[in-house]
Amino acid sequence: MKRRAFFKNGTLAALGGLILPSFDLKAQTMGEAHRNKRTKNIIFLVSDGMSTGTMVMADLYLKRKYGRPSSWMDLYESNLGQRALMDMASASSVVTDSSAASSSWGGGVRVNNGSLNISPNGKENMPILQKFKNAGKKVGCVTTVMITHATPAGFCTWSKSRNAMNEIALNYTELGLDVMLGGGSNYFDAAQRKDKKDVFDMLKKKGYTIARTRNEMLKAPANKPLYGVFAEEALPYSIDRAQSAEEQASIPTLAEMTAKAIDQLKNHPNGFVIQVEGGKVDWAAHGNDIGALLYDQVAFDEAVKVALDFAKADGNTLVVITSDHGNANPGLIYGKECNDNFDRLQKFTHSNDWILQQINANDSVAKVKEHVAQHCGGMTISEEQAKELLGYYAKTERKEDGLYNYKHLPYRLFAEIQKAHTSVGWISMDHSSDYTELGMYGPGSEKLKPFMRNTELHTFLLEVAEVSR
Amino acid sequence: MKRRAFFKNGTLAALGGLILPSFDLKAQTMGEAHRNKRTKNIIFLVSDGMSTGTMVMADLYLKRKYGRPSSWMDLYESNLGQRALMDMASASSVVTDSSAASSSWGGGVRVNNGSLNISPNGKENMPILQKFKNAGKKVGCVTTVMITHATPAGFCTWSKSRNAMNEIALNYTELGLDVMLGGGSNYFDAAQRKDKKDVFDMLKKKGYTIARTRNEMLKAPANKPLYGVFAEEALPYSIDRAQSAEEQASIPTLAEMTAKAIDQLKNHPNGFVIQVEGGKVDWAAHGNDIGALLYDQVAFDEAVKVALDFAKADGNTLVVITSDHGNANPGLIYGKECNDNFDRLQKFTHSNDWILQQINANDSVAKVKEHVAQHCGGMTISEEQAKELLGYYAKTERKEDGLYNYKHLPYRLFAEIQKAHTSVGWISMDHSSDYTELGMYGPGSEKLKPFMRNTELHTFLLEVAEVSR
Repeated sequence: MKRRAFFKNGTLAALGGLILPSFDLKAQTMGEAHRNKRTKNIIFLVSDGMSTGTMVMADLYLKRKYGRPSSWMDLYESNLGQRALMDMASASSVVTDSSAASSSWGGGVRVNNGSLNISPNGKENMPILQKFKNAGKKVGCVTTVMITHATPAGFCTWSKSRNAMNEIALNYTELGLDVMLGGGSNYFDAAQRKDKKDVFDMLKKKGYTIARTRNEMLKAPANKPLYGVFAEEALPYSIDRAQSAEEQASIPTLAEMTAKAIDQLKNHPNGFVIQVEGGKVDWAAHGNDIGALLYDQVAFDEAVKVALDFAKADGNTLVVITSDHGNANPGLIYGKECNDNFDRLQKFTHSNDWILQQINANDSVAKVKEHVAQHCGGMTISEEQAKELLGYYAKTERKEDGLYNYKHLPYRLFAEIQKAHTSVGWISMDHSSDYTELGMYGPGSEKLKPFMRNTELHTFLLEVAEVSR
Repeated sequence: MKRRAFFKNGTLAALGGLILPSFDLKAQTMGEAHRNKRTKNIIFLVSDGMSTGTMVMADLYLKRKYGRPSSWMDLYESNLGQRALMDMASASSVVTDSSAASSSWGGGVRVNNGSLNISPNGKENMPILQKFKNAGKKVGCVTTVMITHATPAGFCTWSKSRNAMNEIALNYTELGLDVMLGGGSNYFDAAQRKDKKDVFDMLKKKGYTIARTRNEMLKAPANKPLYGVFAEEALPYSIDRAQSAEEQASIPTLAEMTAKAIDQLKNHPNGFVIQVEGGKVDWAAHGNDIGALLYDQVAFDEAVKVALDFAKADGNTLVVITSDHGNANPGLIYGKECNDNFDRLQKFTHSNDWILQQINANDSVAKVKEHVAQHCGGMTISEEQAKELLGYYAKTERKEDGLYNYKHLPYRLFAEIQKAHTSVGWISMDHSSDYTELGMYGPGSEKLKPFMRNTELHTFLLEVAEVSR
């Protein structure tokens, strides 16, 4: 319908019927969905270190095993979400680390890798959760790694070094954060801290409920701020937790923590902003650990579902779903066996990290072969490969390093052995420069452009929530 | 503005001012841009085997070297394009090959890998260029590989096997294709064909201009159908062509072929549909050949610019930009040297394929080191690495294979050596299951949803062009 014809057209009824179809159905649907809604709440979900292939394999796994897409892809398939590519470079490198990445969103400025919201020139950039807190919202973070780790810290505080987690835990006590759930008790516990400060006690005195188990978290009252810290360092991989009744009893899932965080804050009249991190997706990618990676990405997706379900019912919540950088760019590789190899992952029962911890230099070749087959969906490694693995444990030097390979396990060697059985390959054990996937649902999402620089997202969130910069 | 208030509001002038802002700016811009336009022409551009990292590295390269984005990313940055993820699986595998991929778009049905528009049950699916031809449009294909290769063939014809390129060339003569530009004279030339049929002569008798050089192509008249075939098999890599005055004189770029194809067809009253393939992006990924990959992706992007410039001026042209599958999932890897290593690619002067062809088993270690440094931006390989390379040439058996490694060159070995100097890694030498990037500009693009199954694109193109299925 021509614009001129529109103005000539005399009746309102005709206009109602005719003008809307001149816009595309998608915008119309979005417009209808979010009409009269405002961005009161924001749930910002980050799958840390998620390359395209990680997101895709989780979706393919769910489709092949359960006949349903991931909640993230379902958002797109049902045409309710908006998407962008995001350039995540840091001030110091085309390839960011997690602290510079979180700082770009959190402080709105690109900082050097390793830094938290402190610019190369020394300027401290106010983290976004402090801005939202000052604007009267309740705020918090949820993660599967230490709650003092780079990604939550980049939304909360400043530090010259992301590694200063003892300081970061102390900083947190001053910020009035309303809900913090994850791991990292070593940075709160007087017995573990070098300075012997009892950060848990400091938090208690400020009125926080401290939850150290899943049940304590679930029964925490909504009228008090909450710290839930469920492990000394990171929480276990989802695939390993699923095999441990003890861990299931004591440690919540990311989805459970997300639901609890929302419950704690949802009745606040000025709204809330939370960051939810699938932090061990990144650790698994650093380890080229396909079982850990796939099931932690699925666990992240379950948290996405919690957020989307809440946002759909609430109507005033913007859900942001993204990653901070690629890592290892895993992908399922072409070949006659690739469907079967990929489906083998459905029968994996443990992370490589767990599997490799169970091996001892004194084990027999047969025992190693059986151990691997048992936990990797019947994967049959050769005698030679089992011997090579065992040989690694007998070595006393030149063992594998790696960012989260604390026990110097043969991550790389085992991933290379697995490749023929899983059809999954890796480019390295570190981050990549790939632009990341950025999805949005809810009021404000209609303003998303298809390409964004990481720092623009800081401004975007403040603007849609009508909070001053 | 509430819907109810809208209907109560009495004046047209007020409506004109008030109703538009209730839609988002993006849709409004799109709506304005494409209002009163129809999808008369379609330019469908495929970077074959382009993983996310390939697209990203080309954009980063252009931004770092020239301070401007790729034309593809510029489309997104300027908020003029629509995007989707596309699931490219074939009937036989989660990971498609190029023939099943092109068939999914071309015939609208998933077929087994290796097949062209013939379903697993034997059904022949009418290729989309035949449908458009029957609807009165002019049609054609442009590629940097053989014009009989999988991607163009999937839009044009049927075959049980993509490898039957002699048959495919013969099939083409019956289809009334209006412009076909690329490589593959071996499948048209009587001297090269086993059956000694002179397919070029058959085409001439049907009224085609046959161009065998860039100049012959450029001066071909617009009032006759055109075959331009510029190499026996694939065209050279862009990075190699740039060093050869002879190849620059005789062989057009993908952008030049795209411009010529548009020129040939643009005045047809019923419009045109062309497919443009950056075919050697895939070959470079199969070879883990970073110089070849980067510069062929940039060459593809120059063809994207030609298409977008035409579409912006024309107004009735839909531009589709995508890939058929990931390949090798290359990515720039984290590390202190990664910026410098990435910038080193600006000084690469030849593909690995070319560099490795120049090495002889009798060369000295010093000569190999110098040769590599000269063509790989000063990259200094060790004596040991040079010896390892030379040792490869002395071998008589167990040489490297690979899809397009006709000369059994040490692609894999050399890519491994390069990794420390380029910070680029690869998961394998084959395709990946990653969903592909799908971008659109122009009338019809506003109907794109954020997630699409490959076969849906077939229907989408017919529907926006109002051509019956």
